[in-house]
Amino acid sequence: MVFYLIGLGLGDVEDITVKGLSIIKKCKRVHLEAYTSILCYGLDKSKLEEFYGREVIEADRTVVEQNSDEILDGADVDDVAMLVVGDPFGATTHTDLVLRAKERNIPVKVVHNASIMNAVGCCGLQLYNFGETVSIVMWLDGWEPDSYYDKIASNMEKGFHTLCLLDIKTKEQSVENMMRGRKIFEPPRYLTCAEASTQLLKIAERKKASGIEPVYNESSPCVGLARVGWDDQKIVYCSLKEMSECDLGPPLHSLILPGHMHPLEIDMLNTFKLNA
Amino acid sequence: MVFYLIGLGLGDVEDITVKGLSIIKKCKRVHLEAYTSILCYGLDKSKLEEFYGREVIEADRTVVEQNSDEILDGADVDDVAMLVVGDPFGATTHTDLVLRAKERNIPVKVVHNASIMNAVGCCGLQLYNFGETVSIVMWLDGWEPDSYYDKIASNMEKGFHTLCLLDIKTKEQSVENMMRGRKIFEPPRYLTCAEASTQLLKIAERKKASGIEPVYNESSPCVGLARVGWDDQKIVYCSLKEMSECDLGPPLHSLILPGHMHPLEIDMLNTFKLNA
Repeated sequence: MVFYLIGLGLGDVEDITVKGLSIIKKCKRVHLEAYTSILCYGLDKSKLEEFYGREVIEADRTVVEQNSDEILDGADVDDVAMLVVGDPFGATTHTDLVLRAKERNIPVKVVHNASIMNAVGCCGLQLYNFGETVSIVMWLDGWEPDSYYDKIASNMEKGFHTLCLLDIKTKEQSVENMMRGRKIFEPPRYLTCAEASTQLLKIAERKKASGIEPVYNESSPCVGLARVGWDDQKIVYCSLKEMSECDLGPPLHSLILPGHMHPLEIDMLNTFKLNA
Repeated sequence: MVFYLIGLGLGDVEDITVKGLSIIKKCKRVHLEAYTSILCYGLDKSKLEEFYGREVIEADRTVVEQNSDEILDGADVDDVAMLVVGDPFGATTHTDLVLRAKERNIPVKVVHNASIMNAVGCCGLQLYNFGETVSIVMWLDGWEPDSYYDKIASNMEKGFHTLCLLDIKTKEQSVENMMRGRKIFEPPRYLTCAEASTQLLKIAERKKASGIEPVYNESSPCVGLARVGWDDQKIVYCSLKEMSECDLGPPLHSLILPGHMHPLEIDMLNTFKLNA
């Protein structure tokens, strides 16, 4: 029949579309992508099952990436759905799933939804003025990658805004547990705007120390966004230095480094000024 | 109380979110942005009124841009909503409306939804590899702007994909009707992928004639998307020359000029090959 990829939007059970909900109700099987950012959205399986009035099957990364046939099996005779936080095409994993469905001649339909990629427009910066999106990786004892700096620099030189998606670590195992083969996972960790700003400023210091003038500094403006689309959403417009000391509360956070700003963009950002 | 900006998504009445629908039902007044792309989405007022079971007030461009107080009036004592195709922050007009609400101390809440800006991910090209979005303007007898070429060139040189939004002309008046003050509007017109590709190829020819090697040519790959998110959505991957002769059917169309493509992106695009 049809394999449906259904976007859940920004995190509340009610962010599903009316179309998405009616498809979920009629499908033979409904899978839920359970390994990316689902937990921090507070969207656990039981909440969704209660809202949909039906069973939902959790699919962890191994299933989606290595045993995708488990998800697709039977979709040639019955409707099967896969639920994804945000929009279904935020991650390459789903591209892969679509390709496998097509190989098996299973028709694929997508129910789109909001994702952080378009919802960031709520801060007032215009979406068409964004350059390449970057991912800021969480620094862990000694492992301090900074390859995203070059992308930010390239965007800034062109006057583009840069959306920085912040790292999420879920289902990570300690070295000891991994070695002992124990399926015990560390509590999930989410990079905050404060931590990301601190990393960015350290990278700028290092560039400076090596004789390169960095494209931003402590007083450069930035926008921190937390829990976009939630009732307690928080948007703060301040300097990178201020952001490095700013607590935006629970995850998910995203950070924007603005490029050239138009007057209307600035007017809107000013409504989110720190201590305004 | 609250002024709600509610995204309608990609065009079907059922693309509204469950949250958006329940807010619409409880609001004192519900306005509908009626001047951008609403018509080509087939979302007319009566269809929405039937689906929502309530009255909807059309707001044309003059009202939203010049008499926004008409929309905001009463939102300090009752809930009022404004419905917008796609996500509410696709257009600067809504930023302006939010600023005016904030000036009047009216709390604003946004119900996000999918927009073409994130839904284009369905073709397989990764959203974070897109550079600046451009708008391709419809050429009209002698008026042939080409400023978007430089933005496409800049994206391509960096290896970024370029999403080209295609021009929409609604509620345009003929010179005669405008001079006579007659409120008679021309039928809406939508730039197609074929027309946009033709314009792009003409610009490349002109660059070449003036001694500049253009960043794309007739055999450059492109992706045409029509009616994204609809049941009859069409995606075609072919050369610019082929696209200039390709009929993707009714609006809305969007065109992508890919930059550097990863193997998985190519695998997915190949499933949309012309005559595949």
